[in-house]
Amino acid sequence: MPKLAYLGPKGTFTEEALRILAPEAERLPSANVGAALDAARRGEADGAVVPLENSLEGAITTTLDELAWGEPLSITAELLLPVEFSLLVRPGTRLGDIKRIFTHPAAITQCRNFTARELPGAVVVAAPSTAAAAQEVALPGSPYDAAIAARIAGDNYGLAELAANVGDRSDTVTRFVRVSRPGPPTEPTGSDRTSLVAFLADDHPGALLEMLTEFAVRGVNLTRIESRPTGDGIGRYFFHFDLEGHVADARVGEAISGLHRICADVRFLGSYPRADGLSPQIKRGTADGDFTEAADWLSRIRTGPV
Amino acid sequence: MPKLAYLGPKGTFTEEALRILAPEAERLPSANVGAALDAARRGEADGAVVPLENSLEGAITTTLDELAWGEPLSITAELLLPVEFSLLVRPGTRLGDIKRIFTHPAAITQCRNFTARELPGAVVVAAPSTAAAAQEVALPGSPYDAAIAARIAGDNYGLAELAANVGDRSDTVTRFVRVSRPGPPTEPTGSDRTSLVAFLADDHPGALLEMLTEFAVRGVNLTRIESRPTGDGIGRYFFHFDLEGHVADARVGEAISGLHRICADVRFLGSYPRADGLSPQIKRGTADGDFTEAADWLSRIRTGPV
Amino acid sequence: MPKLAYLGPKGTFTEEALRILAPEAERLPSANVGAALDAARRGEADGAVVPLENSLEGAITTTLDELAWGEPLSITAELLLPVEFSLLVRPGTRLGDIKRIFTHPAAITQCRNFTARELPGAVVVAAPSTAAAAQEVALPGSPYDAAIAARIAGDNYGLAELAANVGDRSDTVTRFVRVSRPGPPTEPTGSDRTSLVAFLADDHPGALLEMLTEFAVRGVNLTRIESRPTGDGIGRYFFHFDLEGHVADARVGEAISGLHRICADVRFLGSYPRADGLSPQIKRGTADGDFTEAADWLSRIRTGPV
Amino acid sequence: MPKLAYLGPKGTFTEEALRILAPEAERLPSANVGAALDAARRGEADGAVVPLENSLEGAITTTLDELAWGEPLSITAELLLPVEFSLLVRPGTRLGDIKRIFTHPAAITQCRNFTARELPGAVVVAAPSTAAAAQEVALPGSPYDAAIAARIAGDNYGLAELAANVGDRSDTVTRFVRVSRPGPPTEPTGSDRTSLVAFLADDHPGALLEMLTEFAVRGVNLTRIESRPTGDGIGRYFFHFDLEGHVADARVGEAISGLHRICADVRFLGSYPRADGLSPQIKRGTADGDFTEAADWLSRIRTGPV
Repeated sequence: MPKLAYLGPKGTFTEEALRILAPEAERLPSANVGAALDAARRGEADGAVVPLENSLEGAITTTLDELAWGEPLSITAELLLPVEFSLLVRPGTRLGDIKRIFTHPAAITQCRNFTARELPGAVVVAAPSTAAAAQEVALPGSPYDAAIAARIAGDNYGLAELAANVGDRSDTVTRFVRVSRPGPPTEPTGSDRTSLVAFLADDHPGALLEMLTEFAVRGVNLTRIESRPTGDGIGRYFFHFDLEGHVADARVGEAISGLHRICADVRFLGSYPRADGLSPQIKRGTADGDFTEAADWLSRIRTGPV
Repeated sequence: MPKLAYLGPKGTFTEEALRILAPEAERLPSANVGAALDAARRGEADGAVVPLENSLEGAITTTLDELAWGEPLSITAELLLPVEFSLLVRPGTRLGDIKRIFTHPAAITQCRNFTARELPGAVVVAAPSTAAAAQEVALPGSPYDAAIAARIAGDNYGLAELAANVGDRSDTVTRFVRVSRPGPPTEPTGSDRTSLVAFLADDHPGALLEMLTEFAVRGVNLTRIESRPTGDGIGRYFFHFDLEGHVADARVGEAISGLHRICADVRFLGSYPRADGLSPQIKRGTADGDFTEAADWLSRIRTGPV
Repeated sequence: MPKLAYLGPKGTFTEEALRILAPEAERLPSANVGAALDAARRGEADGAVVPLENSLEGAITTTLDELAWGEPLSITAELLLPVEFSLLVRPGTRLGDIKRIFTHPAAITQCRNFTARELPGAVVVAAPSTAAAAQEVALPGSPYDAAIAARIAGDNYGLAELAANVGDRSDTVTRFVRVSRPGPPTEPTGSDRTSLVAFLADDHPGALLEMLTEFAVRGVNLTRIESRPTGDGIGRYFFHFDLEGHVADARVGEAISGLHRICADVRFLGSYPRADGLSPQIKRGTADGDFTEAADWLSRIRTGPV
Repeated sequence: MPKLAYLGPKGTFTEEALRILAPEAERLPSANVGAALDAARRGEADGAVVPLENSLEGAITTTLDELAWGEPLSITAELLLPVEFSLLVRPGTRLGDIKRIFTHPAAITQCRNFTARELPGAVVVAAPSTAAAAQEVALPGSPYDAAIAARIAGDNYGLAELAANVGDRSDTVTRFVRVSRPGPPTEPTGSDRTSLVAFLADDHPGALLEMLTEFAVRGVNLTRIESRPTGDGIGRYFFHFDLEGHVADARVGEAISGLHRICADVRFLGSYPRADGLSPQIKRGTADGDFTEAADWLSRIRTGPV
């Protein structure tokens, strides 16, 4: 039975993601993303599950930066999890009693309509995570009357669910990834995604255009691009890319080799099955067979007829 | 004397930025970025100062999203402010007394070497902002022994500075912008930056490449690009661009008109003097005179000789 | 009644093109393309009709170079004319008598199957033009027994048509243009073509790619591209472009203005109705209305709200 | 001693090129380019020397089309030969006697200043080649008084040189190539050129831009591009490319493999030493070592650590 670290405490959406990705796994809650990943790096866990991006809030930058700069880890799976917020209170609290709500800033934004409509007089205070908010509200002397968090957090900390689905949109989704210490990529399935990080060789104006052209020329579609600061001053960035296809695909291999040639460094984060099950549209001339045929042709013209 | 809202409470790095950008202004602290911007929108303040990005932590996504989706505001100035962290305690606390440190997650990352070296046994807990951490530590019954925050926050809340410059890097910089209700852009200075937000018409694979090509063809250099989720599901993004030059420049005007034509929407956030004072390198054929001359030529050939 | 010069002598395919383009015109044969164009330039004719390209042989380089370097002329119309070759002989000559055939090298290529099959023993000799070949064969003491040329040439010089349609392909087409001294472009019809010549500012490796990108960014499709030597040594070229649309179209205007900005020189050769009657496919965001709307938008953001 | 066919008759500039390229070779004059190439194809000669382009007149389209469509041949060498025209007459003819000059149309253009200045009353008539003009003028009953051709042609046909260097420019150059039946490419020298022909898969608007991007992405510079009609109607072209580097170079190999993948057909015409001895400028990341290193990297990430 594998042991997997996750962004805790118990009751986070990440724990829910872990349950789905690896129902049999032993779950090891960690204080933050870095701690969860370190547990995997040091062998205290066999891997970790962490959030990567949210359809409303965007990238989880801690995860991006840890994967880019920390001891290398490989992504082996992803999961898209709808995020459903509940209004959680200590048993006995009624709607009219709520003066102060504690939750993560993302949830403040996502539940603005509900709080404005149902709790117009209440103050909403920012917490480090939704589960931490639930944990805090569960304390007897807490200055907060309610938390907005996942229902599972309420279960974990003994809170009651006063209202379910209090988010403004019902289609908010968080993308989680499972990582492990570096190993061979997962087997290609025909519906795969590849993640990598690229550090520019020199930060000239057209650098991003050049990187995108490396992908476009081989017909490789990007599904996500994030710029992150290198830490060397405003205006210096590195890039996270998610792309359609598997590193074993010829077009992906040639594209990222090209990226590797023009960049100071490219870190391969893994190829793994797509959670949405979509297959890439393969542009004329970029299927594996086309590359094999072209390589044979090149080999023939390099040798010449005998 | 103008009144400017800022990301408070008193003692934040943002207040320091405001003091430099507008020494004479009355300062109105706000609970968060959204509140500061709303104060400007509703006329409770003449404008606001908010952080936009940090050389270590990256974009302040709340600011990006507020500027993209909220009631329109114009950026009229920017400032680069070195970020110097201090270890702040209630008077009388000594280094050996510190068991629990409270600070913003960005500061946790940025001061990791100091805390590991000087306070190896201490627990570091995440706070919503560095100034909020100082405010909390200043409370008599606070469970935290120290805050990591700007010195000014210590001054504001009566804390003592146990150590200065506890950040791992001395060159961390935050970029702040001053915004006001929409009005004419600031006068071109020859060293200007333009900010805008672009929403894709349809999210096809080459869309970002096409947008970048609109800039490249007119010789307009980008200094920042950020992708942000539209909220319509994983894989759907809009983009923030900062570019060299002023909207009054012919090459900038044609480039962003081109962007406007191919996008569902482009929101112009303003043209304003660059904090670094750099002038753009102007590619052959893209100076204002070149555009005027080309427009005259086109006009002549469209009419033909008489 | 206009007088038009053409590539003579009487009986050329060009004369046939002129008859169709301007049935009422007085026809002035010229010894070669340069002479026909000079007649128009000097006012000895009101214009000229000359061949520009052939679907089998390619560009008529003399025409291209005359239009690029000579005193400026404007293209005002084009015509696509199927080229049908006839085997022409002095009356009385029979197939078995033919030992030496005289014709233009293009016709030698295009009628190779016929001559190999029907006249395997005959020698085929190169003539400066097909009509000149017919003229020569018509001379009593000619060393040639047959000409391959347009039927009209046979009529003009009193030759008999021994065989019609002796070309290997029935779909060979020549494109002719009518030119006149520079004047206002013809009115847009919705199915127009624009021709121009571009001279590079400096002959760097990516120059052609940059020129093509100026067109692509504005959604302007090229229908023909020809490189021609500048005369300054091997490896130095200028370019002829034909493109879809009229100089009055916003997207065409902006594209060729962009070309003008990055080139040493651009010579506009004219906008005129397409012979094939096709309408351009207009890419999203590149219709005239899109440009007007974008210009209004730019104007608004440059001024700002009042 | 190899036997090489060439574009004759004796005395052409091509014969001069052959003497320089292969001083020891037996020379076999051919009536036209096609015949010279056919001699090589059929084994009647060991190879052929033909003109490919002229710095004033442009491509020799017969050569281009023969190399593209005919039985395959390989280019193994190239030569740049300055073209110097002489005014050649039957012995005894004086300048004042010259009424009719016979020469190739290219020479008519290139010697226009001389003929206008020295022979203002003379008629200049087009001949199929300059050597053919000399041959014709040498006939006792020739209607022509002078030929403009290479001095060697005068020597061959017993003409006298009335004036040397009668061309308007002293720097006109013709590029000749030596071809042979297909075999292994020549050894890379560090200063090589590669020639090929590309047939489009489908003739969509951006096709040429896509082809050029295949080269640009791998840092391969083009030195020549020619469009030629496919014969399938106006507006349908194929392309000749000359590029810097040898097919054995990694960047050239990957670029032309990419071209091969997106085209209906690519015909490799050969890699051979450049006549100008220039070395390519190698863009960052495109040297052979960069490709080897990137391939190793790709191989490592595809396998993963063990």
